Amino acid sequence: MRGSSIGHPDKVVRRYLAGLALAALPCVAPAQAPLPSWNDGPAKQAILAFVGRVTKPGSPDFVPPAERIATFDNDGTLWSEQPIYFQLAFAIDRVRAQAPQHPEWKTTQPYKAVLEGDTKTIATFKETQLLQLVMATHTGMTTDDFTKAVNEWLATAKHPRFKRPYTDLVYQPMLEMLEYLRANGFKTFIVSGGGIEFMRPWVEKAYGIPPEQVVGSSGVTRFQLKTDGTPVLIKEPKAEFVDDGPGKPVGINRFIGRRPIFAFGNSDGDQQMLEWTAAGKGVRFMGLVHHTDSTREWAYDRTSKIGRLDKALDEATAKKWIVVDMKRDWKVIYPFEQ
Amino acid sequence: MRGSSIGHPDKVVRRYLAGLALAALPCVAPAQAPLPSWNDGPAKQAILAFVGRVTKPGSPDFVPPAERIATFDNDGTLWSEQPIYFQLAFAIDRVRAQAPQHPEWKTTQPYKAVLEGDTKTIATFKETQLLQLVMATHTGMTTDDFTKAVNEWLATAKHPRFKRPYTDLVYQPMLEMLEYLRANGFKTFIVSGGGIEFMRPWVEKAYGIPPEQVVGSSGVTRFQLKTDGTPVLIKEPKAEFVDDGPGKPVGINRFIGRRPIFAFGNSDGDQQMLEWTAAGKGVRFMGLVHHTDSTREWAYDRTSKIGRLDKALDEATAKKWIVVDMKRDWKVIYPFEQ
Repeated sequence: MRGSSIGHPDKVVRRYLAGLALAALPCVAPAQAPLPSWNDGPAKQAILAFVGRVTKPGSPDFVPPAERIATFDNDGTLWSEQPIYFQLAFAIDRVRAQAPQHPEWKTTQPYKAVLEGDTKTIATFKETQLLQLVMATHTGMTTDDFTKAVNEWLATAKHPRFKRPYTDLVYQPMLEMLEYLRANGFKTFIVSGGGIEFMRPWVEKAYGIPPEQVVGSSGVTRFQLKTDGTPVLIKEPKAEFVDDGPGKPVGINRFIGRRPIFAFGNSDGDQQMLEWTAAGKGVRFMGLVHHTDSTREWAYDRTSKIGRLDKALDEATAKKWIVVDMKRDWKVIYPFEQ
Repeated sequence: MRGSSIGHPDKVVRRYLAGLALAALPCVAPAQAPLPSWNDGPAKQAILAFVGRVTKPGSPDFVPPAERIATFDNDGTLWSEQPIYFQLAFAIDRVRAQAPQHPEWKTTQPYKAVLEGDTKTIATFKETQLLQLVMATHTGMTTDDFTKAVNEWLATAKHPRFKRPYTDLVYQPMLEMLEYLRANGFKTFIVSGGGIEFMRPWVEKAYGIPPEQVVGSSGVTRFQLKTDGTPVLIKEPKAEFVDDGPGKPVGINRFIGRRPIFAFGNSDGDQQMLEWTAAGKGVRFMGLVHHTDSTREWAYDRTSKIGRLDKALDEATAKKWIVVDMKRDWKVIYPFEQ
């Protein structure tokens, strides 16, 4: 009875296909449960619930993939920002490197304090002085040369507390969230007050976010043909766009041209981005990272000079936006802790 | 002999799978040969050859998908631009619609000529007067209201020659090229002197290019909370960025942050974009659409007021960039001809 031992051809085929399906499992197996570095709690649950709602076909909250725009602040949201913004650390290191060409800096502020390592004076610097440091170190060169300078700095500079490259200080739970959103058809963008050309050289490797999905502050650049006919873009010492506070919705509108349905920040500089996100039609996700972990990272909010979180925290509380309590919600902070 | 009539189970399964494969064919069948609306000739061959080189794994010219950035001018490259830029036709129609609220326009240029349909005077308008028309009709409202105005106009306005919606006047061969590039892992961008907010409402449907892949000229927008707390972006009557000529590499650098490996334009306003593209390392594709078809479209180049192609044509000739001869290279111009 060969026939019966084999079974009806359809049955054979079904068995065979079932075997194929099993054999294929290693390729199609679902990834581990999402957000493994997040403790179970209201923040993690809110993220999972939101993504579930907007991606479920037929759900009244369904959002087509093209409209799944997620925007993230960078400093203090995707990587640390203490004891000073990392871009300022870059500017300070560049002042030191460029000092031999600028003997006048020895006696002129704000350069003098930087060259003398006078952190007390540096801490008193107002925005104009910080901008002066940025202009002196970020302009007067081609965009290609600036990219090279950023890459060289990242390859050698070490964070003073962790003695590690600055790009090690990205938040593991946020990396997982970016991945999780992308796996669910979201397009992830950075919308940062930081310099757009400072971020672009490294964010693709660090976060999986390509340069064209980075919105940031920028200076004027000028197209120029060199004498040999080669075109270059020269970075001019003139601010063009400040992508912070009310500038964030402006930047989102200009660069992305679609309103996010999901946005994450950590400071008052993100308040308007979250308001802009919230004001769209349909369900929306607004999140804040609250720095509450003085042991593993830093604890700061209402009175901090860097990353002040005051008005946005009140609005988040009043409007039931999601506030991530870093100490409570994150199992690990940095990838190197794992 | 049921067994033998059925055949060995593996054979059955193979036959069954072969049947499945055939059944699945409508889904996985290779698309028709690329660029069907292009006549065989040097332009089509150059496009196919370039894409073949940069996408062939192991080839010395291979470019990873993330770096396959392709940029396209819009007016005269992806859709027609005669007898006037379509955005100017929109501005003119809006002047007429807004005239009741502006009685002074009846006696003031440039509005007077527009309201009187005085095409002779309109033809003499300098850039400042055109800008005035654009400012008067594109600003003083929220970004959402402007988007609505663009959509309403596109739904009703007809091109004077073809008596069809303006969005019908996109170039079928270029649509095929955009599709072909995307199918080969390219990310396609518009880089246009046209207004970024004028293009974004319709380019996704027309070209398959999402709003976040549109670079264009822009005005200042200002974030504002309405009295009920709703945030809006107000379009201010102040130009911010002109994405034309040397502005195109600047816009590419600012919005995309990567140098294109493939760029297409049609006028001297695209010359610097092509130069910037050409100056990157590795193989590059620089293309120009030459308007040579006075019967099916328009014929114009060196002396045209709109879409002048003079210096860029000389440079293209000298540097062997690809010049598409519309009359010779394109089987059809518009999708509705098919």
